[in-house]
Amino acid sequence: MIKAGIIGATGYAGGELVRLLKAHKDVEIKWYGSKSYVNQNYADVYHNMFEVVKDECLDDNMKELAERVDVIFTATPQGFCASMMNDEILSKVKIVDLSADYRIKDVAVYEKWYGIEHKSPQYIEEAVYGLCEINRQDVKNARLVANPGCYTTCSILTAYPLVKEGLIDTDTLIIDAKSGTSGAGRSAKVANLYCEVNENIKAYNVAGHRHTPEIEEQLGYAAGKEIMLNFTPHLVPMNRGILVTEYAKLKLVKKADGSSGLPSYEEIKAVYDRYYGKEKFVRVLEKGVYPETKWVEGSNYVDVNFVIDERTGRIIMMGALDNLVKGAAGQAVQNMNLMFGVKESEGLELIPMFP
Amino acid sequence: MIKAGIIGATGYAGGELVRLLKAHKDVEIKWYGSKSYVNQNYADVYHNMFEVVKDECLDDNMKELAERVDVIFTATPQGFCASMMNDEILSKVKIVDLSADYRIKDVAVYEKWYGIEHKSPQYIEEAVYGLCEINRQDVKNARLVANPGCYTTCSILTAYPLVKEGLIDTDTLIIDAKSGTSGAGRSAKVANLYCEVNENIKAYNVAGHRHTPEIEEQLGYAAGKEIMLNFTPHLVPMNRGILVTEYAKLKLVKKADGSSGLPSYEEIKAVYDRYYGKEKFVRVLEKGVYPETKWVEGSNYVDVNFVIDERTGRIIMMGALDNLVKGAAGQAVQNMNLMFGVKESEGLELIPMFP
Amino acid sequence: MIKAGIIGATGYAGGELVRLLKAHKDVEIKWYGSKSYVNQNYADVYHNMFEVVKDECLDDNMKELAERVDVIFTATPQGFCASMMNDEILSKVKIVDLSADYRIKDVAVYEKWYGIEHKSPQYIEEAVYGLCEINRQDVKNARLVANPGCYTTCSILTAYPLVKEGLIDTDTLIIDAKSGTSGAGRSAKVANLYCEVNENIKAYNVAGHRHTPEIEEQLGYAAGKEIMLNFTPHLVPMNRGILVTEYAKLKLVKKADGSSGLPSYEEIKAVYDRYYGKEKFVRVLEKGVYPETKWVEGSNYVDVNFVIDERTGRIIMMGALDNLVKGAAGQAVQNMNLMFGVKESEGLELIPMFP
Amino acid sequence: MIKAGIIGATGYAGGELVRLLKAHKDVEIKWYGSKSYVNQNYADVYHNMFEVVKDECLDDNMKELAERVDVIFTATPQGFCASMMNDEILSKVKIVDLSADYRIKDVAVYEKWYGIEHKSPQYIEEAVYGLCEINRQDVKNARLVANPGCYTTCSILTAYPLVKEGLIDTDTLIIDAKSGTSGAGRSAKVANLYCEVNENIKAYNVAGHRHTPEIEEQLGYAAGKEIMLNFTPHLVPMNRGILVTEYAKLKLVKKADGSSGLPSYEEIKAVYDRYYGKEKFVRVLEKGVYPETKWVEGSNYVDVNFVIDERTGRIIMMGALDNLVKGAAGQAVQNMNLMFGVKESEGLELIPMFP
Repeated sequence: MIKAGIIGATGYAGGELVRLLKAHKDVEIKWYGSKSYVNQNYADVYHNMFEVVKDECLDDNMKELAERVDVIFTATPQGFCASMMNDEILSKVKIVDLSADYRIKDVAVYEKWYGIEHKSPQYIEEAVYGLCEINRQDVKNARLVANPGCYTTCSILTAYPLVKEGLIDTDTLIIDAKSGTSGAGRSAKVANLYCEVNENIKAYNVAGHRHTPEIEEQLGYAAGKEIMLNFTPHLVPMNRGILVTEYAKLKLVKKADGSSGLPSYEEIKAVYDRYYGKEKFVRVLEKGVYPETKWVEGSNYVDVNFVIDERTGRIIMMGALDNLVKGAAGQAVQNMNLMFGVKESEGLELIPMFP
Repeated sequence: MIKAGIIGATGYAGGELVRLLKAHKDVEIKWYGSKSYVNQNYADVYHNMFEVVKDECLDDNMKELAERVDVIFTATPQGFCASMMNDEILSKVKIVDLSADYRIKDVAVYEKWYGIEHKSPQYIEEAVYGLCEINRQDVKNARLVANPGCYTTCSILTAYPLVKEGLIDTDTLIIDAKSGTSGAGRSAKVANLYCEVNENIKAYNVAGHRHTPEIEEQLGYAAGKEIMLNFTPHLVPMNRGILVTEYAKLKLVKKADGSSGLPSYEEIKAVYDRYYGKEKFVRVLEKGVYPETKWVEGSNYVDVNFVIDERTGRIIMMGALDNLVKGAAGQAVQNMNLMFGVKESEGLELIPMFP
Repeated sequence: MIKAGIIGATGYAGGELVRLLKAHKDVEIKWYGSKSYVNQNYADVYHNMFEVVKDECLDDNMKELAERVDVIFTATPQGFCASMMNDEILSKVKIVDLSADYRIKDVAVYEKWYGIEHKSPQYIEEAVYGLCEINRQDVKNARLVANPGCYTTCSILTAYPLVKEGLIDTDTLIIDAKSGTSGAGRSAKVANLYCEVNENIKAYNVAGHRHTPEIEEQLGYAAGKEIMLNFTPHLVPMNRGILVTEYAKLKLVKKADGSSGLPSYEEIKAVYDRYYGKEKFVRVLEKGVYPETKWVEGSNYVDVNFVIDERTGRIIMMGALDNLVKGAAGQAVQNMNLMFGVKESEGLELIPMFP
Repeated sequence: MIKAGIIGATGYAGGELVRLLKAHKDVEIKWYGSKSYVNQNYADVYHNMFEVVKDECLDDNMKELAERVDVIFTATPQGFCASMMNDEILSKVKIVDLSADYRIKDVAVYEKWYGIEHKSPQYIEEAVYGLCEINRQDVKNARLVANPGCYTTCSILTAYPLVKEGLIDTDTLIIDAKSGTSGAGRSAKVANLYCEVNENIKAYNVAGHRHTPEIEEQLGYAAGKEIMLNFTPHLVPMNRGILVTEYAKLKLVKKADGSSGLPSYEEIKAVYDRYYGKEKFVRVLEKGVYPETKWVEGSNYVDVNFVIDERTGRIIMMGALDNLVKGAAGQAVQNMNLMFGVKESEGLELIPMFP
C-alpha cells in the first residue's frame, strides 16, 4: 500500500483527492492536513465523508509528514510548497504539488505573475511538469511533480497535436476558457456567493490570468519556439467543468494535386488520433460532436474536437474536462500512479455522471 | 459473470444503471434496450459513455432477452413490465422492475392511482418489494423484485424505525418532499425545459401523487394497521436529489420517574441506531446535522436525522438520497446483488461527489 | 416628493429598495447608508446601478438622517434600529423598519428568540405590524412600522382567511417553507458559496427559526387565541422566491342537508375570494394552478391556492412571493405609500419577469 | 394610444414584449397572436400574467390584424413574416419584425444561411435594420423595421466604435459569445431540458451560426469593406443574458513623439465615450470593471468595456445584454418608440434586477 498524505485536504481539490484516494485500491490516506480545521473531524468539514473518513484533520507539518508517508500531495496556496521544500523531505517522500510553485521553469516569470518570491528555486529544474500524456516518461522517474493547472491542462491538450505538428500559426492562437465555480476555491468571498454567481457569466483577469505563462511555456516546448497568446477565463454558474474554445489560423499544406490549401477534416483528425488514439483519458470525439463539460463530470477524461472554418481559414478547437479531476486531483493521482509504477488508470476509471 | 439486460436503458434511470453496472466487477451488460433509439450507438445517446460503451441500442423484445441474460432490469413506463411478464420469462431470468407494476399488492389500488389495467396481476403476490433494508431476506429468494419508487424509498426509510416501534401517531404523519428534476425523466415537455424549472420551485400532484399509496402500504405493514397520510412532492431546480421533511406527533412514553412525556433525543436516536447502525447505506447523522441532498449525490446512501420540537410535541424527521441511485438504479443493483448472492454493496461503494 | 433615506442600502433587501424607490415617481432617495462601504460609490457596490445611482454611500447616523428626510428605511441587522430609536427621531421622520425589532409585541419573546436585549421596548406598543392587507388602517396612521419578515408574510397570508374564519384546526397547522438564497443575505460565509448551495437542498433552523413566533403571534390574533405551530425553512438553489406549503385539518361544517362534513372547494374558494378578491397584490389562483415562485419574481404579488384532501381531511395551502419584494422591499414601499397617503400600489405595479 | 398587435406572443420574446408593452404608458395591446394557443387565456400560458392580461390568444391572421392596430410585432419563426408581407399591410400598419426575414440585404445570403426561400424579397431594400444606436434616423421614418438578433446586437455594439474608426484589423476579429437558455426558445426539445442544460456548457453551431452573416454585414458597413469573422455561440446554464468576448489586433497609431505604437487605454476609452457617451442604453463601464450579464438582467442596457493586451497587441472587447430585452423585445419597443415619435426610452427605463 502506498501511504499518502494530503496538505490542504479541506479545499475543493483536496476533498476530491480524498474521494479518489479512498477508492484507490493501492493507497491508504495517513494524513488529512488542514490548517483551518486542525483537530476537527474531516467528516464534519465534508459531510459526504461521514462514515467514510473517520480521521481528524492534522496540521501542515511537512517534516513530520515526510516520516510517515510515501507521497505527499500539496493542495495549498501558491508559495506554501516552495517554502517547505528541502533536501531531506525530497529524499524521503515523493511530492505531487498541486500549486503552481514548480510549474514554471523561469523563476522570474513565476515571481512576476504570482507576485511572490520563490523560496526554493533550486528545485525548479528537477521538478517534472506532470501533464502525463506529454511527459509520461519523466513523471515515472520524478521525485517532485508539478501538477498542471486546471485551465492549463485543458488548454494545452486541446491544441497540443496541432502545435507540435506545426499545423497552426501560433501567433494567432486565442484561448477563450469557461470554468465552473469550484475553481475559485472554498474561501468565503462575496464574489463567490451563490447569488452573485448564479444566473451570471463574466470574464475575469482578462489579459492577466496566471495560467497564461504556464500555457505559453508548455505549448512553446511543443512549437520549438516562444509563444505569446491570449487567454481569457470566464466564470460560469455551475459547480464543475472547464470548456476551452481555441482559435488559430491553419497553415496551408501541400495538396495531392500540388496546390496548397487548408488541411482537410480527415487530415486534422488523423493527427489528433495519432496523438490521442491510445490515450485512455483523452477522447477525440466524432465529427460534429462538440465537447460539453457535463459529459466528463466526475471523470478523468478530456474530450476534444475541432471545426475547420473554410471561410476564415481558422480552426476552432474545443476541449472539456472536470477541473477537480483531470484538472487537479485526478491528474495528481495519475501522476502518483506513474511515479509508483502502478497501472496509470488505477483509481481513475470513473464513468462521467449524467445528468 | 452475471449477464444483465436493461430495457429502457436510455432514460435517466437506465443511464444510471449502465453507469453502475459498467463499474460492477461481477456484471456484464448484454442488452441495451431502447425503443426510441434502436440501432443507434448507445454512446450517441449519452456521450458520457463514449469509448465506455460500444454497443448499439436494441429493442424491447423481452422474450429473446430472457434467453440471453441472467437478470433483466426494466426501467420502463408503468404497464410495460406487467404486459410482458409470463411464466416462461420468470422461469429463465430474474427480474428487477424499476416501474411501479408490482409494488402495490392490491391491484385495485394500483389501477385506481395509475389509471391503467394491470395485465398480469397473478405475479403481484410473488413479487418482493425490494427495499433491501427492510425486506432483505425475501429479496434474496425472489425471482421478481419490485424496485421501490424514489420518493418512496426516502419517505419510508426516514420514518420506518419510529413507525415500526409505535413511537409516532401515524394519523398525523405528513411528508413534504422535494426532488431534483431528473425524477421527471428525459421526455421533451415544456414544463421540464431549463427556463421553466430554473429559478423556480413548485408543488405538483398535490394530494394525488402515485407514490402515496406505495408509502402508505409499506408503512402500514410496519405499523400493523392501515395508514393514510399526506404526501406533497415539489420540483426543485437541481439535477439530482430528494429531500423529505416528515412531521408527526410523538406518542408520550413512560419516564423513569413514572410520569409520561415526550421521548428524549437520546431515546429516539437509540431507536434509529438500532435499526440502521449496521446498515451500510443508511447513515444516521450526528445531532444537529441535517441531511442535504448534495452530501449523498452520486452515492447509494440515505442520510437521515430528526429534531424533536418540545413546544408542539412533534418530531421532524428528515431524509436525503440521490433519486437515481438509492432511489432507482443503485437500489436495483443492491437488489440484484442480494438475488445473486453477491456482496450486497458490490459496485455501490460510491463516495458522494462534492461539490 | 417624499425624501427617503435607507440604512443598510448595500444588503440585498437594501438594494431592492433602491431599485423600487428609484422608479417611484413620488420619492427621492437622499441617503444611501452603508456602514461597510462609506464614501464608496453606490454603483461600485451594485454595478447594475451604474449611471442610475450616482451617489456615494454614507454612514448610519440616524440622528442626522432624521433631519434630512421624511422616511427612513432600516434594512439592518436585528437590534440596530431599536438601539437608535428615540422620541426625537420619531417626532421628525416616519420609520419603516425591515428588521425584526418591533415585530413582536412581547419583548420577552423577542429577546428569547433573538438572543439580544431590546434597547427601546417602549416603542413596541406603538409600532404597527406592517402587513398591509391585514393592518392597512393602522399603517396609514403609523409613525413606526415593523415591516414583516419574508417567510412570515408568505406564511400568514396563505393561511389567514381560513384561520380568521375558524375553518381549520390551528393546533394541526404545519408550515413547510422553501426559500431562495438571497434570504441569507450578502455576507461572505462558506455555507452561502455558490458550490455549497447549488445542486443542493436542506432544511435549517428546524424547530428554531426566528420567524416562528412572529407567525404564531399574527395568526394568533386572527384566531383569537394562542397558536403554536411547526415552521421549517429550507434553502433552495435559486436567487429569489419563497414557497410555503401549509397543512392543517379542516373543521367539519354543516352541510345543506343537515349533515356535517368537509367544506367544499367552492366554499373555501369563496372565503379566499372574500378576503383577497379586491387585494391587488394577493392573487388567488384558479383551481388546479399551484403557486410557483417564478410566476411572481420581481413583483409584489403573493400567489395563493389550496387543495382539499378528502382522504385525510386536511387542506394543503400554498403561497409564493418574491422574498426581496413582497417579502421585504416591496412591502416596505407599500407601507410607505400608505403612511404618506400615496396610492398604495404606486411604484409597485411590477409585472413578474419570466423566464 | 398606440394600438399594438403581437404575432408569436407566447414565445419567450413574445412574452417579454407583453411584459414591456403592458407597462408602456402610450401602448395598448390589442392582439395576442399565438398559433399554438388560439382561444386559450394568455394568462394560462404565462401565469405571471394572471390578473394582468385578461385576453385570449388569437390566430396569426395578419391581414385582419392590420385593420385593427397601428403596429405589428412579429416574434415568429423565420419565413413567416416574409410570407405574409404585402403592400396592403405595409400601407396600413408599421411592422417590427423580430425574425431574421429582413435583416440581411443580400437575399442569396439569407437563403443560404437560413435554408428557406424568401417570399417577399421586394421589401428587403426598404426594411431598416433596427439597431437604434446606429440607424436611429432611418428607423424614425421606417414602415418596416428588421429588429436585430440577440447575439448580433451585443456583438456589433461591442466592437462598433473601433471598427468604424478603423482602430482594429477586422481580418483578425473573433467573437466568442455565451448565451442563456431562453435564447433557445420555448419549444419542447430534449437538448433544452433542465437536466441537459444545467451544470453544463457547450459550443454549438460552430462556424455555422446564422447570426454570423448579420454581424458581418453590419460591421462591414462600419468598416466600409467586407468583413469575414469567426463567431462561436455557447449555451450557458442561466435563463437570460448574453456575454460576448471579442478579440482583434489593434492597429498601430502615431504617437505624440512621432513613433508608432498601440493606442493607449485613454485613447480607446475616448472613442467609446464619443460614440456612446450620450446613449442611454449603452454603458461604457469604468476601467477594470468587466460586463456581467447579471448587471443588465431585465433591462435594456448593453454594458461594454475592453482591455488592451500590450503583450499580444490585441484588444479584448466585452459586451453584455439581456437577450430578451435589448436583444429582442426591448429593442423592438425602442424601435417602435422611434417610429411613432414617442420618447425613445419610454417604457424601457428598467433598472436591472439584482440578484
